[in-house]
Amino acid sequence: MKPIKKRLLTPGPTMVPERVLEALSRPTLYHRSPEFKEIFLEARQRLRRLFRTEGEVLILTSSGTGAMEAAVANLFKPGDSAVVVVGGKFGQRWAELCRTFGVNPITVEVEWGKAVAPEAVEAAVRENPGVKGVLIQICETSTGTVYDLEEIGRRLKNYPDVLLVADGITAYGVYDIPTDEWGIDVAITGSQKALMTPPGLAVISLNERAVERLVDNPPAYYFNLKKELKQQSKGQTAYTTATNLVVALNEALKMIEEEGLEEVARRHALLAEATRRGVQALGLKLLSERPANGVTAVIAPEGINGQDVVKIAREEFGVTIAGGQEHLKGKIFRLSHMGYVDQFDVLTGLEVAEFALWKLGYREFSLGDGVRAAMEFFASV
Amino acid sequence: MKPIKKRLLTPGPTMVPERVLEALSRPTLYHRSPEFKEIFLEARQRLRRLFRTEGEVLILTSSGTGAMEAAVANLFKPGDSAVVVVGGKFGQRWAELCRTFGVNPITVEVEWGKAVAPEAVEAAVRENPGVKGVLIQICETSTGTVYDLEEIGRRLKNYPDVLLVADGITAYGVYDIPTDEWGIDVAITGSQKALMTPPGLAVISLNERAVERLVDNPPAYYFNLKKELKQQSKGQTAYTTATNLVVALNEALKMIEEEGLEEVARRHALLAEATRRGVQALGLKLLSERPANGVTAVIAPEGINGQDVVKIAREEFGVTIAGGQEHLKGKIFRLSHMGYVDQFDVLTGLEVAEFALWKLGYREFSLGDGVRAAMEFFASV
Repeated sequence: MKPIKKRLLTPGPTMVPERVLEALSRPTLYHRSPEFKEIFLEARQRLRRLFRTEGEVLILTSSGTGAMEAAVANLFKPGDSAVVVVGGKFGQRWAELCRTFGVNPITVEVEWGKAVAPEAVEAAVRENPGVKGVLIQICETSTGTVYDLEEIGRRLKNYPDVLLVADGITAYGVYDIPTDEWGIDVAITGSQKALMTPPGLAVISLNERAVERLVDNPPAYYFNLKKELKQQSKGQTAYTTATNLVVALNEALKMIEEEGLEEVARRHALLAEATRRGVQALGLKLLSERPANGVTAVIAPEGINGQDVVKIAREEFGVTIAGGQEHLKGKIFRLSHMGYVDQFDVLTGLEVAEFALWKLGYREFSLGDGVRAAMEFFASV
Repeated sequence: MKPIKKRLLTPGPTMVPERVLEALSRPTLYHRSPEFKEIFLEARQRLRRLFRTEGEVLILTSSGTGAMEAAVANLFKPGDSAVVVVGGKFGQRWAELCRTFGVNPITVEVEWGKAVAPEAVEAAVRENPGVKGVLIQICETSTGTVYDLEEIGRRLKNYPDVLLVADGITAYGVYDIPTDEWGIDVAITGSQKALMTPPGLAVISLNERAVERLVDNPPAYYFNLKKELKQQSKGQTAYTTATNLVVALNEALKMIEEEGLEEVARRHALLAEATRRGVQALGLKLLSERPANGVTAVIAPEGINGQDVVKIAREEFGVTIAGGQEHLKGKIFRLSHMGYVDQFDVLTGLEVAEFALWKLGYREFSLGDGVRAAMEFFASV
C-alpha cells in the first residue's frame, strides 16, 4: 500500500498540533507593534513557568544550536576553560563551539549511550581550578540518554564561579525540570522539539548569576545576549524575530499549560516506557543505559542496518523515524515520542519498526509482539 | 493518560488531509468570478471521472440527504411509485423522502446487515408495472453492508422506464464504480465521506435518461435540478455555493487522481479486510453478511453496550468511532476506514476497540490480538 500520510516520529522537528498550525497561519504581525509585544511578553512568561525559573528567558530566532553558540560566546571569554561532557553528538557540539570561540574545553568523555557520572563532572571541575563553567546536555539526543542534572547541579553548588549550562533541547517539555532548584544557571531549548512548534526559535534561560556573567562585547553580533536582554525585557527583540513562530509557540505553551506540566511529563514517561517495553519485546536492546523520555535509541539487530529501517519506514510507510549519527550510523534507529504524541503514535512507531524489521529479514519475533507489550503497559497504568 | 489528540474514525465526517484544509483556508472566492468558475468546472470534470460517467454531475451545497431529496423531488411526480430497498437507516430515508413528496414507496425489506437479493429488486419492479424507479443504497452505512449494484443494474436494464437511483454516499471514493456501465442512472455522494472534504457539499450524477426525466416545476425551490443543470453547465450555481468547500473538494479530488482510483479502491479493500480480521480475532462477529469497504459494523459482545465502547473511545482515548442506529443502537459499534485513512489508522481503531472492550470487562482475547491479526494481513499483501 502506498503511503498516503506523512507522520513525523523524529526527535525534531516533531508533529505540530492543529491549533499551533492555525496560530502560525494568522496574519503576520509587525515585530514592533503593541499587539506583538504583548504576545511576546506572554510567551516569555509562559517559558519562565515551563522552565520554573525566576530568571530571564530569551527567545532567539535560530535553531537550538544558535542558543548554544550564544551561551558560549556571551558567557565565556577567550582563554577561559569549561568542562564539557561529551557523550554523543551534542556533547561534541559544545566542544566545537568552545574551540570556535577560544574557550578551552576540558572534556569528560562518556561512552555513547552511557550517562555521565555526576562525580566525574565534579572531579573535572575540582581538578581544574579556575574552570568557568560546565557545558552539558540534559538529554543527549543522539543516544537517547538522560543525565542526572539534579545530582550534578547539587554537586556544583559548591563551586560558585562555575556556571552550569545545560542543553535541554530535548528535555524541556518532556520532563518537568525545576531549573532554579537544580542549580542550572543557563538552559536552552528549541521550538521544534517538545514545544510542538515548527523549527526556527530557540530559548535560553539565564539566572541572576548568568546575567552577571554576560560579556559586554561578545565575539558575536546577532547572538548578543546583553542586547537581547535589554530589548526583550521591553517586549522587543534586537533584530526582526520570527513573529508567526512566536505566536505559534505561545499557542503551544498554552496547550502545555492546559494539559499541565506534571501531566505532560507523566505522559512522556508513559510513552517512553511503552516504547522501551515494545522494542524489548522484539528481542532488541536499548542503546542507552539511562534512557531518556523524549526519544528511544534502539540497537539494530545483528546484520540489519539501522539506516535501512529508517529508509523503509519513510519510503514504504510514510513515517519518519531517525537513524544514528557519527559512529552510531547504521547501528541504531531512534523512535521519538516527544511533543504532540500520544499512545497511538507510539504504537504506530512500533508497528512501523516491526514491519520494517520484518521486511529486512529480522524475524526473531511474531508481528505484533512489540505492540502487544506496549498495549499491555498502557492498559496497566 | 488524558487524550491529547482527536481522531475521527467515524463514517463521516472523516479525517481531512492537510492539503485539503489548506485549500479550505484559501481566501474566499466570489461565486460568480471567473477564477471560481474555472475551479468549479474542474471539480465537476474530476467528479465525472470519479463516477466514470459521461453524464452530468452537479455539486449541491447541502448534506448528502439534500441530494437524496433533490432526486426524489426532481425525478418523480406525486402519485408515482418507486421500489425502495430498506435494509437500514438510509433505506428508510428513501422511503421517508418518497412519502414527503407524494411518491408511493414499494419497499423491499431486508434484514439489517443482509444484502438485498438482486432478484428481489427485479421481482418488485416486475410485479409493480408502471413503477418509475428503484431507490437504493450502494453501501448501507448503518449496517456496513454493500449491495450488488452491478447485478441489480444488469437486471434493471430490461426496464427502460425504471430509473436506478443509488445513494453512493459511502461508496464513491471507496470503490471504483463504473456508474454508466452498471446502469446507475442517478448516483449521489457527499463531501465528508471518502471524498476527504469537510461536510457541506453533496454530489449528484444524472445520465441522459435521468436528465430527460427532470421535472419542470419540482416541489422544491432550492433543490431544483433543472435550474442547477442549466447554471452548472456554465460553471455557475443557482444560488450561492460553499466556495471554500468547492476549492477544498477540488484539491481532494486531485489527491484521489494522484493516488489513482484503482489504488484508492485497493487501499480501502485492504483496510477493510484488515479491520474485519482484526475484530474477528477478538472473538467478535461482523453485523454484515456482505461487509462494505468503507465501514465495518461489529456486533458488541454479549453483555456489552456498543454505545459504551463508543463513549470510552471518545472520552478516554480521543478517538471517535460510531455506534448503532435505530434498533441496532447499543448492539453494535462501527469502525470507519474511509477516506484519508491508512494502515496505521486502522490499527489505531483496533487498539481503541481493544482498550475499550477490555475496560468494559470483555476479555475473551489477549490485548493486541486484533492488532496482530491486522498486522499479519498487512504484511502479507
